[in-house]
Amino acid sequence: MPLRLSRLFLRTLRDNPADAEVASHQLLVRAGYIRRSAPGIYSWLPLGVKVLRRVEEIVREEMDAIGAQEVHFPALLPKEPYEATNRWEDYGDNIFRLQDRKAADYLLAPTHEEVFTLLVKDLYTSYKDLPLSIYQIQTKYRDEARPRAGLLRGREFIMKDSYSFSVAEEDQRAAYEAHRAAYLRVFERLGLPVVPVDAVSGAMGGSASEEFLFPCEIGEDTFVESPGGYRANVEAVTTVPPEAGDIDGLPAAAVHLTPGTDTIETLVAAAQADHPRPDRAWTAADTLKNVVIAVTTAEGERRVVVIGVPGDRDVDLKRVESTIGAQLGLAGEATVEAAGEEDLRQHPGLVRGYIGPGLDLEHPVLGQDASTGIPYFVDPRVVTGTSWITGANEKDHHVFGLVAGRDFTWDGVIESVVVEDGDPAPDGSGPLSTRRGIELGHIFHLGERYAEALGLRVLDVNGKLTTVTMGSYGLGVTRVLAAVAEAHHDERGLIWPGSVTPADAHIVATGKEAEIFETAESLAADLEARGLTVMLDDRPKVSPGVKFGDAELVGVPTILVVGRGLKDGVVELKDRRSGEAEQVPVDSAVDAVVDAVTERIRSLS
Amino acid sequence: MPLRLSRLFLRTLRDNPADAEVASHQLLVRAGYIRRSAPGIYSWLPLGVKVLRRVEEIVREEMDAIGAQEVHFPALLPKEPYEATNRWEDYGDNIFRLQDRKAADYLLAPTHEEVFTLLVKDLYTSYKDLPLSIYQIQTKYRDEARPRAGLLRGREFIMKDSYSFSVAEEDQRAAYEAHRAAYLRVFERLGLPVVPVDAVSGAMGGSASEEFLFPCEIGEDTFVESPGGYRANVEAVTTVPPEAGDIDGLPAAAVHLTPGTDTIETLVAAAQADHPRPDRAWTAADTLKNVVIAVTTAEGERRVVVIGVPGDRDVDLKRVESTIGAQLGLAGEATVEAAGEEDLRQHPGLVRGYIGPGLDLEHPVLGQDASTGIPYFVDPRVVTGTSWITGANEKDHHVFGLVAGRDFTWDGVIESVVVEDGDPAPDGSGPLSTRRGIELGHIFHLGERYAEALGLRVLDVNGKLTTVTMGSYGLGVTRVLAAVAEAHHDERGLIWPGSVTPADAHIVATGKEAEIFETAESLAADLEARGLTVMLDDRPKVSPGVKFGDAELVGVPTILVVGRGLKDGVVELKDRRSGEAEQVPVDSAVDAVVDAVTERIRSLS
Repeated sequence: MPLRLSRLFLRTLRDNPADAEVASHQLLVRAGYIRRSAPGIYSWLPLGVKVLRRVEEIVREEMDAIGAQEVHFPALLPKEPYEATNRWEDYGDNIFRLQDRKAADYLLAPTHEEVFTLLVKDLYTSYKDLPLSIYQIQTKYRDEARPRAGLLRGREFIMKDSYSFSVAEEDQRAAYEAHRAAYLRVFERLGLPVVPVDAVSGAMGGSASEEFLFPCEIGEDTFVESPGGYRANVEAVTTVPPEAGDIDGLPAAAVHLTPGTDTIETLVAAAQADHPRPDRAWTAADTLKNVVIAVTTAEGERRVVVIGVPGDRDVDLKRVESTIGAQLGLAGEATVEAAGEEDLRQHPGLVRGYIGPGLDLEHPVLGQDASTGIPYFVDPRVVTGTSWITGANEKDHHVFGLVAGRDFTWDGVIESVVVEDGDPAPDGSGPLSTRRGIELGHIFHLGERYAEALGLRVLDVNGKLTTVTMGSYGLGVTRVLAAVAEAHHDERGLIWPGSVTPADAHIVATGKEAEIFETAESLAADLEARGLTVMLDDRPKVSPGVKFGDAELVGVPTILVVGRGLKDGVVELKDRRSGEAEQVPVDSAVDAVVDAVTERIRSLS
Repeated sequence: MPLRLSRLFLRTLRDNPADAEVASHQLLVRAGYIRRSAPGIYSWLPLGVKVLRRVEEIVREEMDAIGAQEVHFPALLPKEPYEATNRWEDYGDNIFRLQDRKAADYLLAPTHEEVFTLLVKDLYTSYKDLPLSIYQIQTKYRDEARPRAGLLRGREFIMKDSYSFSVAEEDQRAAYEAHRAAYLRVFERLGLPVVPVDAVSGAMGGSASEEFLFPCEIGEDTFVESPGGYRANVEAVTTVPPEAGDIDGLPAAAVHLTPGTDTIETLVAAAQADHPRPDRAWTAADTLKNVVIAVTTAEGERRVVVIGVPGDRDVDLKRVESTIGAQLGLAGEATVEAAGEEDLRQHPGLVRGYIGPGLDLEHPVLGQDASTGIPYFVDPRVVTGTSWITGANEKDHHVFGLVAGRDFTWDGVIESVVVEDGDPAPDGSGPLSTRRGIELGHIFHLGERYAEALGLRVLDVNGKLTTVTMGSYGLGVTRVLAAVAEAHHDERGLIWPGSVTPADAHIVATGKEAEIFETAESLAADLEARGLTVMLDDRPKVSPGVKFGDAELVGVPTILVVGRGLKDGVVELKDRRSGEAEQVPVDSAVDAVVDAVTERIRSLS
């Protein structure tokens, strides 16, 4: 039976909903696919359910094809497993917690590493049972501080999450590669030009974790690429540091009066005017800017740290956030922001505009063991032997020629500045350019973390207990659907790829004559007999303009108009994407539609 | 690809899990379909996912066939719509409540009347848009006080819930009938001999609500049926009351000393010994037993009521529970239990073993306006003019010949006694017999309750706003799956109907010869080429006994054993249900299996 617009539970909207800023959100609501139920929580209308099921089915097919087995876990889970891995605490405000009638603690799971691990522990005991990959497609929950962009960042959403379990390292690597390949096939089938990028920085090796980003202006992630094929999330990019220089022979540092120079710009101008260097002009890159950051721990404690970066660079708080927790030895997800008035008031040792690490190693100002006790991190460009103009910790004073490693030191090195177009790729593959993207998937070598915490051990080939190695692979199903809408639309509406369209063809009957409606019905029946799914606009007393507008908004890629031309024996076949239309004889219309649909599936667009 | 037992994420158990008392729970866990994650919360293993999807698909097909449209709502919903209908309070402890990071109140929805109503209100405005039936298949939550019997009473479970919206009464009736017919088709396809029974008593008409019960010893519901075709949940059965009699001329009541008669049995014996009646012996039915019940309101307040019933009858607390709330004018779900020591202590006016309504209308003891103030309800058999032996509210004393309506009265009439085999059907269709059953579905004419509370009104044919009439139709998907397991198993394991089996055929390769395994593989491939799904026990080094045991436990209805007979060119085709086995030539084995599977689907078993 065709999907009849006369009966379909659908009401298209002329205007964008007030809270919708991105195209996928606007169009999915306007075209009647979803409706907001609460912040970050959506209901699915019949058209939305159809597209969602198709996306799920593509994901399922590709998971099954790599031998992953589908299971299904509860969304409502007891606290205990998540306590064993510290995630009950680590998630902070980001998960929904609740108690049952007996006051037992539960959560709405954001991911399921713990219970997958426990289930395998429950069932399996030997290396012979492994490797194993299991997955689920399931509703997940995350109490986002700022749900936004419709399905792109929601609080209730659907994810496919899989987990692999191996004894042998090479089995884990194979599972990772299999998932990687499956993800690329999923995105190809969805018509999404997704790029995998390194998600974890150098130390663990580029292959330890990759994100699948859909390049898109509205994306929340920034990634870089080089002409030589390097691709990484900015959070994972590593700076190519200069070689450490020789300290010997460098001139001694000197404090100068630099009145009213509490910005890098005024400082460079003053340096140039009052203390010019012989060889070249001073630049912002000669200054060491000490930025005060407030870190809030998962438990809500607020701490201040200072990060020293070259003065021509800005700090990227997201990059800081991704590693500062580990640097400070914190459990859980820390959040960071620029320090405020109150933070500075609490640390009178920090002289705003003139902060520096101290004048010599005997009298450090910044650092856990220094006079302020404030942890001090520096950019990788600050290597031993580099010489800087920086604050002298006294109003209107800066120190010139302060040499890293000779005059000051630091608690750690941190990747913290905005990666800029033209920065060199860490693998030497050329200058980086930056792009925005939406993260649609993330694959990890987890190692033994969860297996260790939850005691998942099996007998190895020698009969000895060995801890299992795991991988974890997420793919945001509802987010993918939104990304498809971002990738495939124009100003008039959605344009679904053939792989997920709610119907293969959309027949629009325009006019009043019974013959038009009868012909439309009969074409629908013939197309269904050929195995196609059909949407049929059989609404009486609705103007052709409204019907065409709805068809373009709803976005079925092949449109067949049965109208005035019928008296001359022709109908109009329209391609929603190109806008091209051709008159075809009504007798060959079914073949023409079947050809168009087949061609679309063949070309995956 | 066949489902290979060498790789399938499965571990069958020899013993029943300690917490499992019913067959479906025991077998679904032992055969590796589900695993417990928390009380009343289960995880689904690969075999379970397969059967669950098939059950869902049957439900979906039958819903689609009656023109219902699939949508999908969040499980996590804001409080407000449920406050508008009072259900936020009414559910008491039975729902999971939580707060988000901004302290906004949410619930995990147990059913979705409110948000379906609001969505229709959001989209539709005119009678022309209706009638409409929409449904979802979705995970639901209920914080059961006593989750039990595995999937039969869980806290996280899957339901299909649909809702119909009409302006015209006849459209609502048609939607109800369509759902009723669809449910019967679902159960037929699942091989479940389900019976629809009236679920609401007389006043609203028998068709206002029906339950679909699967007759089964372990069911929590009791229903009755008569030879003439009357069927009802015991909670909905109405008593055929005697005609009210004439009060004039009845002898006056008299109090007698009846020492040590605090039970009906001792009372009847004492009456017979000391105060015999001339015409016949006293029986328990001549006595009026006043039973003290404790009612706990949704808000947790505990109240005492007394129910007067003929002494030969026992009180059915579930029947009391189903109506006592309405009788007392309470909002929300009340729970009842027999009153305890403490309840009686709080009401010294109640003399245990000798409680009665009082000796005359001037001095009532029971009743809201009586000396105790305790609400007093009576069985429908207590009609004006009936005469009773009952307590005189004094230790060791009873009153004889106390006439209803002359000497005592009551606050209300309540259906409260256990319905017994032989009781007359209310429609005169003969004596009732009682059976146990599991409730698998429930359909309701909702009327305007939700539309009224949430303001769902549309323009009628005259352009006037009219409130929409609704129906609500639930079907427990996971519970249905458990019922199928209850209906289809034997002492050795599960026996799935062809419509939901995890595979059409289970090939068991037994022996060591490579030829056996090769033949099994090739038979599997041939069966798949014929469109069948195949499970293949290709495990090396597992004994035939273990393989046969697993096959019987897992419950695929058609089993093909490839083993010793192969050297003689035969394999064994076994019917799991009948246990019958036949040797078939290996060359015709594929045809034989296809025939067996086809026949099974044809006969729906």
